[in-house]
Amino acid sequence: MWGGRFAEGPSAIMREINASIPFDKALWRQDIAASKAHVTMLGAQGIVSAEDAKTICEGLDRVAAEYEADGVPEDWDLEDIHMTTESRLAELIGPVAGRLHTARSRNDQVATDFKLWVRTAIDQTDDGLAALQRALVTQAGAHADSIMPGFTHLQTAQPVTLGHHLMAYYEMLRRDRSRLADARMRMNESPLGSAALAGTGFPIDRDVTSAALQFDRPTANSLDAVSDRDFALDYLMAASQIALHLSRLAEEFIIWASQPFGFVRMADSLSTGSSIMPQKKNPDAAELVRGHAGRVIGSTTALMVTMKGLPLAYSKDMQDDKPPVFEAAGLLALSIAAMTGMVADSTFNTNRMREAAELGYATATDLADWLVTEADIPFREAHHITGAAVKLAEQKGVALDELSLDELQAIDERIDDGVYSALSVEASVAARASYGGTAPEQVKQQVAAARKALGLNDGATA
Amino acid sequence: MWGGRFAEGPSAIMREINASIPFDKALWRQDIAASKAHVTMLGAQGIVSAEDAKTICEGLDRVAAEYEADGVPEDWDLEDIHMTTESRLAELIGPVAGRLHTARSRNDQVATDFKLWVRTAIDQTDDGLAALQRALVTQAGAHADSIMPGFTHLQTAQPVTLGHHLMAYYEMLRRDRSRLADARMRMNESPLGSAALAGTGFPIDRDVTSAALQFDRPTANSLDAVSDRDFALDYLMAASQIALHLSRLAEEFIIWASQPFGFVRMADSLSTGSSIMPQKKNPDAAELVRGHAGRVIGSTTALMVTMKGLPLAYSKDMQDDKPPVFEAAGLLALSIAAMTGMVADSTFNTNRMREAAELGYATATDLADWLVTEADIPFREAHHITGAAVKLAEQKGVALDELSLDELQAIDERIDDGVYSALSVEASVAARASYGGTAPEQVKQQVAAARKALGLNDGATA
Amino acid sequence: MWGGRFAEGPSAIMREINASIPFDKALWRQDIAASKAHVTMLGAQGIVSAEDAKTICEGLDRVAAEYEADGVPEDWDLEDIHMTTESRLAELIGPVAGRLHTARSRNDQVATDFKLWVRTAIDQTDDGLAALQRALVTQAGAHADSIMPGFTHLQTAQPVTLGHHLMAYYEMLRRDRSRLADARMRMNESPLGSAALAGTGFPIDRDVTSAALQFDRPTANSLDAVSDRDFALDYLMAASQIALHLSRLAEEFIIWASQPFGFVRMADSLSTGSSIMPQKKNPDAAELVRGHAGRVIGSTTALMVTMKGLPLAYSKDMQDDKPPVFEAAGLLALSIAAMTGMVADSTFNTNRMREAAELGYATATDLADWLVTEADIPFREAHHITGAAVKLAEQKGVALDELSLDELQAIDERIDDGVYSALSVEASVAARASYGGTAPEQVKQQVAAARKALGLNDGATA
Amino acid sequence: MWGGRFAEGPSAIMREINASIPFDKALWRQDIAASKAHVTMLGAQGIVSAEDAKTICEGLDRVAAEYEADGVPEDWDLEDIHMTTESRLAELIGPVAGRLHTARSRNDQVATDFKLWVRTAIDQTDDGLAALQRALVTQAGAHADSIMPGFTHLQTAQPVTLGHHLMAYYEMLRRDRSRLADARMRMNESPLGSAALAGTGFPIDRDVTSAALQFDRPTANSLDAVSDRDFALDYLMAASQIALHLSRLAEEFIIWASQPFGFVRMADSLSTGSSIMPQKKNPDAAELVRGHAGRVIGSTTALMVTMKGLPLAYSKDMQDDKPPVFEAAGLLALSIAAMTGMVADSTFNTNRMREAAELGYATATDLADWLVTEADIPFREAHHITGAAVKLAEQKGVALDELSLDELQAIDERIDDGVYSALSVEASVAARASYGGTAPEQVKQQVAAARKALGLNDGATA
Repeated sequence: MWGGRFAEGPSAIMREINASIPFDKALWRQDIAASKAHVTMLGAQGIVSAEDAKTICEGLDRVAAEYEADGVPEDWDLEDIHMTTESRLAELIGPVAGRLHTARSRNDQVATDFKLWVRTAIDQTDDGLAALQRALVTQAGAHADSIMPGFTHLQTAQPVTLGHHLMAYYEMLRRDRSRLADARMRMNESPLGSAALAGTGFPIDRDVTSAALQFDRPTANSLDAVSDRDFALDYLMAASQIALHLSRLAEEFIIWASQPFGFVRMADSLSTGSSIMPQKKNPDAAELVRGHAGRVIGSTTALMVTMKGLPLAYSKDMQDDKPPVFEAAGLLALSIAAMTGMVADSTFNTNRMREAAELGYATATDLADWLVTEADIPFREAHHITGAAVKLAEQKGVALDELSLDELQAIDERIDDGVYSALSVEASVAARASYGGTAPEQVKQQVAAARKALGLNDGATA
Repeated sequence: MWGGRFAEGPSAIMREINASIPFDKALWRQDIAASKAHVTMLGAQGIVSAEDAKTICEGLDRVAAEYEADGVPEDWDLEDIHMTTESRLAELIGPVAGRLHTARSRNDQVATDFKLWVRTAIDQTDDGLAALQRALVTQAGAHADSIMPGFTHLQTAQPVTLGHHLMAYYEMLRRDRSRLADARMRMNESPLGSAALAGTGFPIDRDVTSAALQFDRPTANSLDAVSDRDFALDYLMAASQIALHLSRLAEEFIIWASQPFGFVRMADSLSTGSSIMPQKKNPDAAELVRGHAGRVIGSTTALMVTMKGLPLAYSKDMQDDKPPVFEAAGLLALSIAAMTGMVADSTFNTNRMREAAELGYATATDLADWLVTEADIPFREAHHITGAAVKLAEQKGVALDELSLDELQAIDERIDDGVYSALSVEASVAARASYGGTAPEQVKQQVAAARKALGLNDGATA
Repeated sequence: MWGGRFAEGPSAIMREINASIPFDKALWRQDIAASKAHVTMLGAQGIVSAEDAKTICEGLDRVAAEYEADGVPEDWDLEDIHMTTESRLAELIGPVAGRLHTARSRNDQVATDFKLWVRTAIDQTDDGLAALQRALVTQAGAHADSIMPGFTHLQTAQPVTLGHHLMAYYEMLRRDRSRLADARMRMNESPLGSAALAGTGFPIDRDVTSAALQFDRPTANSLDAVSDRDFALDYLMAASQIALHLSRLAEEFIIWASQPFGFVRMADSLSTGSSIMPQKKNPDAAELVRGHAGRVIGSTTALMVTMKGLPLAYSKDMQDDKPPVFEAAGLLALSIAAMTGMVADSTFNTNRMREAAELGYATATDLADWLVTEADIPFREAHHITGAAVKLAEQKGVALDELSLDELQAIDERIDDGVYSALSVEASVAARASYGGTAPEQVKQQVAAARKALGLNDGATA
Repeated sequence: MWGGRFAEGPSAIMREINASIPFDKALWRQDIAASKAHVTMLGAQGIVSAEDAKTICEGLDRVAAEYEADGVPEDWDLEDIHMTTESRLAELIGPVAGRLHTARSRNDQVATDFKLWVRTAIDQTDDGLAALQRALVTQAGAHADSIMPGFTHLQTAQPVTLGHHLMAYYEMLRRDRSRLADARMRMNESPLGSAALAGTGFPIDRDVTSAALQFDRPTANSLDAVSDRDFALDYLMAASQIALHLSRLAEEFIIWASQPFGFVRMADSLSTGSSIMPQKKNPDAAELVRGHAGRVIGSTTALMVTMKGLPLAYSKDMQDDKPPVFEAAGLLALSIAAMTGMVADSTFNTNRMREAAELGYATATDLADWLVTEADIPFREAHHITGAAVKLAEQKGVALDELSLDELQAIDERIDDGVYSALSVEASVAARASYGGTAPEQVKQQVAAARKALGLNDGATA
């Protein structure tokens, strides 16, 4: 009936389905740290003797040193990182190891360990995003007046500057970092001492362990403390937003790197070439970043579905909290790093960008505006005239401001040579000087403010 | 080729797929408010005349009054709420209506309207959660020492109090409310004045419109402002967490209301009965709350998928941002209200709960602890003795503390009648007095702190 | 405490959360049909009198006629379509209406109605896909030898034909249609007569009602019959795959329609223009199709989450099965129709496509292959020579086959003028004549086979 | 700027993000098999010499033997399983190894390998489901007349038999298996020979490789062949439905195993006990199965999101197709095995189940029916009488059929002792003999039909 790898029957199945050590060994540093904080407090409170506490702490240090040197052994019969560590501790220091588990249970222990892990992941993600922001503001500063077509619907709409475009991503990441900061603050309460679900009768001091692990305070309700995985979802949700932002930037790099666009040449280090097709530089890294958004979102979905409808307090389903978080964090770290490299090391073909803006007749709006404002022509008529001008330029295959004054006056005699001040893409972008707009002066102010927020020493090149 | 409702061919398809008025008419109040703020600023800046600004504002008030009285007309040819309103405005006040759209575009307009709508949804959701918290603390206060079995794995583990259990949900909702507050603060920047994507050449004052609409400041980058739907995702993600918490509480009510449990009798108003099966009270409301979690999560998934890989700036895909948010907000409001009623109006069968705690031998841990602490018996031996006592109680069908001292001493003679202080469920819960634990004194402190946080006048019954 | 629209308290909440009539009224045709089949069988079995059965059937016809004429009234107190219809029936024909519900319950009734609705949705979706396939093969036939760049990683890789490219979508839709056919076959079992959950003691004949409703057979287990929503998920999953395929085609149209590509000019009927930017044709329909993929996938997620962990038999959560299916079916019908119009009515700029293939040096592979095969040059050396040729062509801004023989021989003297037979994009596509390859002869065979499968009369233009 | 594990900068990032060997090494058997089929065909077609083909085949066998013995080496610089194998082959047999890659590319190669892997996963999943079905029909046969409460809304509704309940899951799995069969048939077309995207100029015979790998035919369009991941989604979607079904059964086991229900005692091998709480048997395996549904659904979401909006042909995003499929397949195999053990080895407490059915007054409907049918009492009056009888039984704490005839006649004198034939739970289930109903005879027929379909030799005990 069982066959295959479960030939032994249910006990083999149970050993495999139940074992979390293959993934939760990633928590070993947190598990050691939390155990040391716990036993130190037990010693201080006189729940275990000072000597035992010291012995256990030293034993934990020895276990940690072994893990650091040789990795965490993966024995399914020991189920998880907690029992793996306790078992090794007992081998090293004998029965006194058993006192470590006084006044706690695996339920509060795993909640504590996992929170510590997620907190570190938040910090590392934030560091990564800051690096990506630095790369963005550096390129944005260098391209504050590099003109490119601004798209809506991927149709050329109005000219913008590349610096302006890149700073839009700076803003997205700014929000992402605030999301991480919020999640960190909300999660930073210590579950340790909640025991199995109901608290404990031992005279523990939860404030002490909380402080030792840099939590802001202990959790207020022990049932909640062992049942809560909000913090993991908060991280996954922030990760999903980040992954979505990166997927948008990745999409743009992929489109910009296509031959018909030709806006960007990616660094060799982040693309793959072909010896026989020198024109081909596959934007692999950008595609993987875009693809990874799927897996990050899938991880978020996974944990939401797992948590749905679980009664209090701890249920074993919650063991499925870690793989999605570990996967998302790993993919996200790589994605952020790849995008940072892409932003920092890509070469933008600003001539091609500018040309695309001109040939897309992106200043047609500006012509109409000029006619209204300067020549006092009613709006509908101005539109008609503009349409005729664009049509002529299209026929001649030139930019709008390459039409001669004669040609323009043949369309409408009220046009004078002041119009050229509106027709160039430079004039167009310069005009849009409202706060947050694409005018180079505006972009430079955005960049300056961003550099300051990032702590970049101005005058320097980041 | 086309047949059916698209017999006219592509133009009929386009009219239907393109029309957002069937759902975005929900934004009418926001659209009017934003337009008034915009035109007032245009007047103040001299971009339109003071008189025109006044005429337009009054016209908008008239449109609003019509909408209030008769609803928003749904004409697909007018596509969306913005054009519907402008068209009606033009009918009412003539061509001057056209000046309203100076220095803005539908791209910044819809971003502004939708943000205002989401901000209101956040506030309403928060109000709902506060009401549910009040219901929880009130019941928790009344049941701070009502004993029930605490479950892990849905197996009786240790006795807890009902008040303690309900306060766990108070904590979840506390985090949910902080999530909403964070989202509100992060989103509260005004997109208005970002125009199509690049800002505008008109001398607008974005600070003025921002303040008029109670935003904290204008957005810093116009490309980002029209491309950003983070705020909708922030709301949906918070909504998903809330829906998950409610699904857990709903699951508990459903299980508690089953005949074998019989812990709770739901209010007639929130369940459906059967004239021939008086014992049957279907917990429909709880089931619908649990089911709705699916649709709220589905809405979140929907918008994440839609936003994935969209290049800047505005793409029409983003029109699919509103239906998921509207659906989730509606389901959530109903779910929160239903759970509030369920918590407030349910009658708990505390005898049955207490009995379940006793018959589940939930104090077995306490017996073992007593043997270790009081009789100085080594842990392994204590476990063995405890097992024998539980076995005997099971055979006799009684609670542990209903075993006689003779019976207990027959198992181990070192047991004395001090043991009864540990064996009762009351003793067990009283003992777990660590911070956040289930001891009634702890629960009462939690409730008192929560009442204070909720602004409940103490001494009152909420 | 309640405020707002729930001022009446729990009963108002319950009325609103419990009412499914706002959406399940869409089932009215199915509900009438199933009721008629049921009562006709009851009459034939003598469970109700022949006369009563006739009266009820006629009454149901009257109700149906009213619904057809005036729509289904939406009275929340009547909860759902079943009670709405029964209530109206009782008004029309009196107490005999009560006999209709003999030997059935709302649980089997709603399962039957909803299955019938989904079955129709499957058939309509399949019709839509067939129309889209016809549009694809027609354009593919017309462009069996129109050359375009074949992309991998959105980088020009090798020349292909537009017909070949479009036929790839024909294949995807072929699989989609087989998915729908499988789902239809699997679901086509009648739940009617399963009653509340356990079957019934009345001597019903389930084969008769099954046949009357064009089911293949009755379901084999009544508990399963009322608990099963697999069929809705099967439809949603097929819908998701379809939506994904359409999102890919939509993405291509959007990219192809951008100015830098310029491969396609969409029909005016499916895009929106701008009076002042004649060059701008926003591909709104394609963007909405791409965006809708999010909501279809979100709908699938919603129902999966809702069904997770539901014990048997019917739970009220399952009332949340219909909104996701209705939404997905509606979005999908529009999306398929829009893509059909887009494929049928777009104009491809074949010159631009061909030029892009040439300037992308898509035949570099062919040059290397020629050197190996015809000039007996080792592969690595051939690569080197090819690289030099591409570099020269890039410098001169010409296609590979626009290099003169002198220029080529200057790179390597073993090249002779036979090489031109390999260098043109025509030669390249013609060479790839393996089964399923891009050679026009292959594409024409694919098109011919597809036309036959679609029942298109050949020689005709579809 | 880079720090941490990316200290080397972009090249280190690229090596890590690009490497698929950590997961795609799972494809090694498929990769070897497909390569052998390919090179054998190349030899038969004279594209490579017979001798070279033989050398390569033998070399591939040597590589396979190494992998079997020592595992697949994981060298990130070799990126993936294809290059890892080719590189080792070249080490073993020299430059002739290079001929293996003639007329194919990694794009068609990976599509072929992955299809073969998924096909095997489908077969293994189907085997697992068949084993679970056998366990279900065996228990159902043994419990065809074991009475339990049938629930709707988790409220006792009507008595059913445990056999009937278990057979509902047999039906779900029957549909799941048909889903797998459909997916297998649809996917079984060989991509091999589609090359990079456009087919090849070499005179390959795709029918030969297709047949050698047990495909039904080659794919019809090479662009589709390398861009298609429908088959992976088909598998994931079937897996999601299976996981949902298992989550429902798991939920039931968890509820049934709770102390207040006490319907089932799980096998020790699939639960975890506690030495001090002998009453506690945590249903860990069931909880993990329920939790895994989240990760399987998350995997499905992941791949859907990744595929959304990808233009043709191959994009690197598609490298993210494998981890979700591998994860889902692994979790599913474990989940199916665990549920098989749970069904086969659990002990049902049939007394408790029967008692719950009686005390839940599940036959109240039957009493009302009896009054209508046998005593000719109008329906509304019958309901009233039934309500009174249930109320009395509740007060006395007895089952309905434990009321004396005197007691019943005191409620309504028209009741005679024939009523007892309707009041017992046995009578109730026996009466529901409609096709698919809960009557033991019906259940036995369902079981018999299922045993036959499963090829179980009847008379035997499976």
